[in-house]
Amino acid sequence: MSQISLGTYIFEKVKEAGVHSIFGVPGDFNLALLDHIKEVKDLRWVGNANELNAGYEADGYSRINGFAALVTTFGVGELSAVNAVAGAFAEHVPLIHIVGMPSQSAEKAKLLLHHTLGDKNFDDFVKMSSRISIKLKVIEDLEKAPLQINDLIETAYKTKRPVYLGLPSNFSDALIPASLVDELKLNINLDDNDEETEDEFVDNVLNSIKSAKKPIILVDACASRHAATHEVERLAKLTNFPVFTTPMGKGSFNEDSDEYYGLYVGALSHPDVKELVESTDLVLSIGGLLSDFNTGSFSYKYSTKNVVEFHSNYCKFKRATYDALKMNGALKKINAALQNEKLTYKSLPVPASKFDYQTAKEVPNGKLTHDYLWKRISYFLNQDDIIVSETGTSSFGALGTHLPKNAKAISQVLWGSIGFALPAAIGANFAVDDIKTFDNSKLDSRVALFIGDGSLQLTVQAISDACRWNIKPYLFFLNNNGYTIEKLIHGPTEEYNNIQPWDHQKILELFANNAEHESLVVSSCKELDDLLKDEAFNKADKIRVIELMLDEFDAPEILKLQAKLSDEINKQ
Amino acid sequence: MSQISLGTYIFEKVKEAGVHSIFGVPGDFNLALLDHIKEVKDLRWVGNANELNAGYEADGYSRINGFAALVTTFGVGELSAVNAVAGAFAEHVPLIHIVGMPSQSAEKAKLLLHHTLGDKNFDDFVKMSSRISIKLKVIEDLEKAPLQINDLIETAYKTKRPVYLGLPSNFSDALIPASLVDELKLNINLDDNDEETEDEFVDNVLNSIKSAKKPIILVDACASRHAATHEVERLAKLTNFPVFTTPMGKGSFNEDSDEYYGLYVGALSHPDVKELVESTDLVLSIGGLLSDFNTGSFSYKYSTKNVVEFHSNYCKFKRATYDALKMNGALKKINAALQNEKLTYKSLPVPASKFDYQTAKEVPNGKLTHDYLWKRISYFLNQDDIIVSETGTSSFGALGTHLPKNAKAISQVLWGSIGFALPAAIGANFAVDDIKTFDNSKLDSRVALFIGDGSLQLTVQAISDACRWNIKPYLFFLNNNGYTIEKLIHGPTEEYNNIQPWDHQKILELFANNAEHESLVVSSCKELDDLLKDEAFNKADKIRVIELMLDEFDAPEILKLQAKLSDEINKQ
Repeated sequence: MSQISLGTYIFEKVKEAGVHSIFGVPGDFNLALLDHIKEVKDLRWVGNANELNAGYEADGYSRINGFAALVTTFGVGELSAVNAVAGAFAEHVPLIHIVGMPSQSAEKAKLLLHHTLGDKNFDDFVKMSSRISIKLKVIEDLEKAPLQINDLIETAYKTKRPVYLGLPSNFSDALIPASLVDELKLNINLDDNDEETEDEFVDNVLNSIKSAKKPIILVDACASRHAATHEVERLAKLTNFPVFTTPMGKGSFNEDSDEYYGLYVGALSHPDVKELVESTDLVLSIGGLLSDFNTGSFSYKYSTKNVVEFHSNYCKFKRATYDALKMNGALKKINAALQNEKLTYKSLPVPASKFDYQTAKEVPNGKLTHDYLWKRISYFLNQDDIIVSETGTSSFGALGTHLPKNAKAISQVLWGSIGFALPAAIGANFAVDDIKTFDNSKLDSRVALFIGDGSLQLTVQAISDACRWNIKPYLFFLNNNGYTIEKLIHGPTEEYNNIQPWDHQKILELFANNAEHESLVVSSCKELDDLLKDEAFNKADKIRVIELMLDEFDAPEILKLQAKLSDEINKQ
Repeated sequence: MSQISLGTYIFEKVKEAGVHSIFGVPGDFNLALLDHIKEVKDLRWVGNANELNAGYEADGYSRINGFAALVTTFGVGELSAVNAVAGAFAEHVPLIHIVGMPSQSAEKAKLLLHHTLGDKNFDDFVKMSSRISIKLKVIEDLEKAPLQINDLIETAYKTKRPVYLGLPSNFSDALIPASLVDELKLNINLDDNDEETEDEFVDNVLNSIKSAKKPIILVDACASRHAATHEVERLAKLTNFPVFTTPMGKGSFNEDSDEYYGLYVGALSHPDVKELVESTDLVLSIGGLLSDFNTGSFSYKYSTKNVVEFHSNYCKFKRATYDALKMNGALKKINAALQNEKLTYKSLPVPASKFDYQTAKEVPNGKLTHDYLWKRISYFLNQDDIIVSETGTSSFGALGTHLPKNAKAISQVLWGSIGFALPAAIGANFAVDDIKTFDNSKLDSRVALFIGDGSLQLTVQAISDACRWNIKPYLFFLNNNGYTIEKLIHGPTEEYNNIQPWDHQKILELFANNAEHESLVVSSCKELDDLLKDEAFNKADKIRVIELMLDEFDAPEILKLQAKLSDEINKQ
C-alpha cells in the first residue's frame, strides 16, 4: 500500500480547496512540513518577508481566489500574524492558518524550548488564536488527523472565517495511506436549508416584493464574501428594483447596470441617494454588516419596519428571525418563483449622482486633487480589474470611483488595519496569476493599489514578495505628508500624526532584484490624465510605483464628514 | 484646585519610572491620549513606522534604561505588537503597553465599531494579551485610575514583565487633581525578604561557600534583568570563585576581570570550560533560565547535588526551595557576611579558551569568515558599548566576541523571534541618547547591531525610526544569501530557506531624509580590519550600514552543533 506523509496530505487538501500559492515564513518548527509542498503539483511556497504581510497577502488572495493558506512557526511566527488573521475573521475571509509546533515528545517532557514564554506551557498561543478563529485543532493522533484537517478546511470554506491547525513537528513526516487523498474528498457545499423554514420565509418575502411600491435592494459585504452576488444580480433583473451598495458592498454589484443607483452611507450619502433610500417601503438587505465606517457612523435613516435581512447563517423578515437559514438557498428559491411573476413595480429615475464621476472627462488645471483622482480612476479601470484601497483617504476616495462590470474592490472597512492594503493587493495579484495559470482562464485582471505614505510604512517589504515572483501590480502611493485621515479626526497639526518622509522612488530599487520595474511621480491632474491614457502604461507588464503628490489636508469630502463623527464618538 | 487630565497623569508616572521616549503608532482611539505627551517635560513621542517595531524598540529601550512604554490602538494596533510583548514577557523585560480603546459609551451601546471583530465584544484583545502580561487593567472608574496605573507600573518594574493598560478614549481628557502626581509616588523598590527565611538560606549558602573546593559561579539572564549584577561582581571578588556566563548571561559579568573564566553552554562549551564546570563541587547559579539555546539543548552535565539557585522570586539550596525569597536581598546579605571571612579557596588556572579571540590580532588573507569576524569585533568594542545580535549566525557568533568592561550584549535567546534585533538595537540607542541627555551622564555607548539578510527583511522599516530622530547605530548586515541558521537545522538547499535578494546599499537612501548616513560593503578580513581601525569610522556620528559579505554556509561552529541538536528534537 503506497503511503504519503501527513504534511503532503495537508497540502493536497489545501490545493483541493483551490489554493496554488502558500504564504508564510519558515521557522524551525515548520521546516519539515515545508519539505512536502514540492510533492504536490502546481503548488508554490511564496516565502514572505514577514508574517504579518504573509497573513495580509493570504487575505487578499482568498478574497479573489476563495480560499488561502498561511504557514507560520510556533509563538514568534504565529503571533506576528494574528492581526491579519483577526482581520480575516472580522471581514469574513476564509483561510487556514497552519502553525508548526514543537514535537509531542518535547511537550510531554516539558522542555524549556525557544519560542516559548519560558513557562513550559505549549497552549498559550492556541488559546490566543481561539478568539480569532472559527475552529482550532492541534493534531494529537495520526489516524484522526486526515478527517480533522478536512473538517477545518470545510468549516473555513462554509463559514468564510479563518481556522487554525496546530501541527507538532513530529507529524510532518508521519505516514498515512496515499489513497486517503482520493477517499476523503472535501465537502465544501453549503448544507441545504430546512425546507419548511425556507418556504415560510420565501413566501413572506415574495408577498412583500409583490406589494412594494418603493422598494430597494441594499448590497453589503457578505453578499460577495458568501458568494451570493450572482443571485443578487438575478434578483435585481427579475424585480427591476433599484440597487444600492454600501462601502463594504462596493464592487459586489455591476455599477454599469440599469439597476445600479448608487452608494448608501447613511448621513454621508449623496442627498439624492439618501432621499431615495430613506423613503422606501421595503429594504431587501443582502449580507449587511452595519459597522460605523460602513453606515456613516450608524446614521441609517430608512424605516426599519419593512426590512428583510439576508445573512449567511440566518435571515430576518421584519422583526422575525429565521435561525440557521442561509441566504443563498433562500435567494435562489425567491428568484425561481419570481421568474413566473409579473411585478407591477415601476422604475424610479436614476439619481444624477450616479454619473458624478463623468466630470473627470474634463481635466482641471493645477495640482492633483482627490476630487479629480478618484473620478479619473473610473476611466483607467477595465472590466475584471481589482482596485485595492487602504483605510484612509484611499478607501473613502475609492467610493467615488465608478467600477466597470466585474471589477472588484477590496478594502478593509470593518477591521481597518492600516498596512493591510499593500500586501492584500499583492495577495490578490498572486490569485489572479494563479487563476490565469491553473484554471485555463482568460482572466485579464490588473491590480491597482491606492495607499497613503503613512500606511505604506507599516508593511512596505511586501513589495519584495511581489518582486520575488514577478507579480506586477500598479502601486499608487498617495504622498500627503503623514496620516491625513487621523489629522482629520483629531490633532491636525500634532506631531504624532506626522511621519518620517521617505524617498519613495528608491523603494523598487531596493526590492526589485531582477524584476522589471518602473517608478513615476505625478503632481498635477494633467500628468495623471496623460499617464493613465498612455498605452504602454496600461499594460501590466512590470511592477510600478506611481507616487501621487497630494496636499496634506486634501481629502475626499465623505472622509471629512466621517472624521468629525468619529471624533465625537471617541469623546463620549 | 488645579487639575490635570488622566492622560497627563499616565505620562507623568511613565516618566517617573525613567522613561523619556514613548514608542508606538497613532490610531483614532489613542489620539486624544497622545495629546498629553507634550504636557510632560522631557518626554517625546517617537512615532514608529509600525507596531511590531515599536514593541521591539520598547524592549531594547527597557533593557538599557530599565523601563519602557508602548502605546497602540485597539485591536489592529495592539495585535500587531503582541509578538514583541510576548518576547518581553518571556525574557523578563519590563514595559507598560497602553492601549487606546473605544469609549465606555460606545461599549455600553454595543456599537459595531471599526477595529472590532464585528461581534460587539470589546474584551477579546485584552483576553489575548492576558497570556503575555503579568497584570492587566482596563480603566473603568476615574477615581480609582491613578492608583491602578501606579500599581501596573510598579508590578512591571518589580517583576520585570510587561503589563497592559486599557484606556477607553473618554478617559484621556478626564480631569483629576494635579496634586496626585506628587502625592502618589511610585514605589518601585523590591519588598524586603522574610528575615528568617533569608537568614536560613544565607547560612546554608555561606557554609557551602566556606567548604567548597571546586566551586563556580554561573551567571545567567536574570542576573542582569533583575539588576543583581553588582552583587554578583562583589560575590566574585569576595570569594575569588571562577565565574562563567551562559549565552543569555553574556555581558552580565566583566569579561576583563580575573574571575571571568568563560562561557558555559553544556555540550557546546569549549572542552576546557566544560571540564572545569562539570567537575565542580558547588554551583552558585544566578538568575538561571535553562532554555534549549541557552544550555546546548539541555546538555548541562554538572552534578546537580550541590547547586544553589538564585532567582528573582525564589531561591533554592540543593533540593530545598525557599519560596518568595528574592536573590537581591540574599546576595547582599551573603556578601556582607563574606567581608569578614577568610576563605581557603585557591584559584584554578584560567582556561586558555578565554583568550581565543586574541588570534584576531593576525589578519587572515581572503574572504571574510565568521571565525575572524566575531573575534575581531572584540577589538572594535569600547567600554560601555552595546552589541545587539539577531537569533541566528549573529547570536551564536557574538558568543565568541570578548566584551570589554561594562559592555552590554542584547540577544533574544529564549524567545528567538527573528526581526527583533534591528528595532531592539535602535530602541537601545534611544535609551543611550536619553540617558546622555537627561541623566547628566557621560555615558558614551555606541550600539552595534549584527543581523542576517533574512531577519533584516522582517522589520527593516525600524531604520526609518532611527533616521527620524538622528539615532546613530552601526548596522552590520550579514549578507549570506538567506536563512543560514535554518539551512543548518533542516533543508540546506530547499527553496523555502532562500529569500529575495535586496540591494542593501539602497536602504539608507530610502529612509534617511535629512539624517547623515553612510553605507559600506566589506568582503575580506583585511577590509574589515582596515575599516574597524579607521578613526573616523569609530565615531558614532552618523547612521551606518556595513554590509558583510559572507559565504552562505559559513557559520560559527557552535551554531552548527546546536542546529543538529535542534533538528533531532523536532523529529522526535
